[in-house]
Amino acid sequence: MTTLYGIGVGPGEAELLTVKAARLLERVPVVAYPAPLRGDGMARTIAGPFIPAGKIEIAIRMGFTADRAGADEAYDQGAAAIAGHLEAGRDVAVLCEGDPLLFGSFIYLLQRLSGRFAIEVVPGVASPLAAAAAAQLPLAAWDEAVALIPATKSEADLERLLEVADRAVVMKAGPHLDKLRRVLGRLGRNATLVERVGFSDQRMLPLAEAGAAGYFSLVLVHGKGKL
Amino acid sequence: MTTLYGIGVGPGEAELLTVKAARLLERVPVVAYPAPLRGDGMARTIAGPFIPAGKIEIAIRMGFTADRAGADEAYDQGAAAIAGHLEAGRDVAVLCEGDPLLFGSFIYLLQRLSGRFAIEVVPGVASPLAAAAAAQLPLAAWDEAVALIPATKSEADLERLLEVADRAVVMKAGPHLDKLRRVLGRLGRNATLVERVGFSDQRMLPLAEAGAAGYFSLVLVHGKGKL
Repeated sequence: MTTLYGIGVGPGEAELLTVKAARLLERVPVVAYPAPLRGDGMARTIAGPFIPAGKIEIAIRMGFTADRAGADEAYDQGAAAIAGHLEAGRDVAVLCEGDPLLFGSFIYLLQRLSGRFAIEVVPGVASPLAAAAAAQLPLAAWDEAVALIPATKSEADLERLLEVADRAVVMKAGPHLDKLRRVLGRLGRNATLVERVGFSDQRMLPLAEAGAAGYFSLVLVHGKGKL
Repeated sequence: MTTLYGIGVGPGEAELLTVKAARLLERVPVVAYPAPLRGDGMARTIAGPFIPAGKIEIAIRMGFTADRAGADEAYDQGAAAIAGHLEAGRDVAVLCEGDPLLFGSFIYLLQRLSGRFAIEVVPGVASPLAAAAAAQLPLAAWDEAVALIPATKSEADLERLLEVADRAVVMKAGPHLDKLRRVLGRLGRNATLVERVGFSDQRMLPLAEAGAAGYFSLVLVHGKGKL
């Protein structure tokens, strides 16, 4: 039976693909991925070493500043192209940076294609896990709860979440560092910034010492205890 | 330089090890892992297909009902055995179910060995990601926050966390289903139970229809929106 695979390719380091992802990418005839208006995009770049030449490729292109309507249109077109291949009997793998279901574009393709085709989601190493590994900081220990929070949350929502969670990772934090610093200052919490985790230009330092940072930056909010 | 590796082996399916984990396990002479009083334990079982014969193995054994003091003693002994091998020039890989820093026993070894040896943490596919993949439910979409919560939290803490997080995964939920059902009932939230994700006897059903469930069960708390 033709199958649509949503494949997490991990946070940046090629070797953090799973054995399963590598095996499937060897086999499927069609590979789709989100991409900027020009170029390959992060997911295709990360998985590159595992994609043999000669695949049919579908780049689902959207501008960096796409609003929800613009993104919806791109996903509609991408889903239609993917459906065409599935209907023609060709398995399709959709590459997703990190994990497909944690802020992954695969969520929006799943929404459009679920129920029509056999679908398998192959989970991947999400970037908060890789950032914690790089910093050698626990994400959650013993009876702690950790919140994974997009930095686009309002200042009030951020504060409510950070008040109740023992630890947190704030994602895509680059454009929101000032808001985040105000909240963490009020709550008296320390944090570590990790920029472009897993890439050769990865940068890691205490949030308090970081000036500006790029879009793909994560902030690890430390626990209240000693660990 | 001798190195201690903390290696996430993923949630249960052998192929969800990363390519990096598989490569390191081929190479290191010593493999350590948490284990029950008898038998191999989950991490060793999951990674088994990737561990060649002839490795030196260290089982860090503790009873299923070990309290914090009992666990501390087991980690002290495990850390001492690991340190002995590192001092003798042998790299050691510690196997961790899921990810090493998300409720992973590696956190307690890192605490004991950090600063004394070169350490590298290799992140792995955490079980909440695998459970979401199995259920084909988003963990977090667009501007949502997701909380990963150990089911041992008090009923009041669980409720506070579930009130502010858009979605949540409650881990090791088996013994705490009644408490969780009360909280979710009060908040009017739906949820899916996933038991032993990735193993051949995996079970998945709406929490409302689940009777009892084993220790290694996760509860995916659905979002408030339409996705």
